[in-house]
Amino acid sequence: MSTDYPTSPELAAQVADQLSYTKDGLIAAIAQQHVGDGNGGEVLMMAWMNRDAVIETLTTGRVCYFSRSRSKLWRKGESSGQVQSLVDFRWDCDSDTVLALVDQKGVACHTGRRNCFYKSVRGGEVSNIAEVEISPDDLYG
Amino acid sequence: MSTDYPTSPELAAQVADQLSYTKDGLIAAIAQQHVGDGNGGEVLMMAWMNRDAVIETLTTGRVCYFSRSRSKLWRKGESSGQVQSLVDFRWDCDSDTVLALVDQKGVACHTGRRNCFYKSVRGGEVSNIAEVEISPDDLYG
Repeated sequence: MSTDYPTSPELAAQVADQLSYTKDGLIAAIAQQHVGDGNGGEVLMMAWMNRDAVIETLTTGRVCYFSRSRSKLWRKGESSGQVQSLVDFRWDCDSDTVLALVDQKGVACHTGRRNCFYKSVRGGEVSNIAEVEISPDDLYG
Repeated sequence: MSTDYPTSPELAAQVADQLSYTKDGLIAAIAQQHVGDGNGGEVLMMAWMNRDAVIETLTTGRVCYFSRSRSKLWRKGESSGQVQSLVDFRWDCDSDTVLALVDQKGVACHTGRRNCFYKSVRGGEVSNIAEVEISPDDLYG
C-alpha cells in the first residue's frame, strides 16, 4: 500500500487549491477499484466533491463526496458500511476531474451491484449487465 | 469484439432517451481503455456528451463528445488522429454518467500522455506520475 495517504492537512490544502471547481464549488470524482500496477481496475461510480470533501478524503484516507441532493458531505459507506479506502488521489490535465483509486468494501452501487455502470446494449436492446450482489434492504435496512 | 456496436439509429435514440442530461443538455462521459473481460483497464479521460454526441458515438462506433469551450461536437481524434473506437457503451444507476469502454489509438491526453490523470501526490508533494509519450507538436502540428 502507498505511504502517501492519508496526507497532512497542509498537503491536502495544497492539492485542493490546485483543483478547478464549478461555479457551485464542485469537482467531478471518479472512483476506480485499485488493482495491480494501479492503472487497471473496475470503474465503480462517479460523484462530486467540494473542497471540504477533497480535504477530508485526503486527510482521512476514506473517500468523501458532496451529496448534491442532500447538500452535505457524503462519507461513502457511513450508512451502508461499503466504504472506499483511498489508495491514490489523481486529477487530470484540466484539474477539473478527480480519479480516486480505491479499495471498495463490498459494493459501490446503492442498488447492491458492484459498480453503478450496469446498463448497456446487448443483442439489440437495452440490458442490465450486472447482478445485484447485496440486497438494498440489507445495505440500508 | 462486440457485435453490439455500432447500433442502429433507432436503438441509439432509445438509449439517448433513457439518459438524464443537465439543464445545459449534457451528460458526463468517462472513457476507459477496454481490456480482458471488459471491466478492468485504464481510465483515460472524462468529458461531456450531448444527445447528438451520444447518438453519433453509438451509430458510428467512434467516440464523439461535445466540446463545451467550442460549443460543438468533438469527434475525438479528428485533428490528432488519436481516435477512440467504441467497445461498450454503459451508463449508471442514475442515468447521468456514461462509461465508454474504448480502444484508444495512441494517447488520450492533449499533453501527449496516455491518459489525462497524471497529477498525484508522491513523497509529500504534488507530482506528475506519467511521461509524455507523443509531443503535442506532433499531435497537433
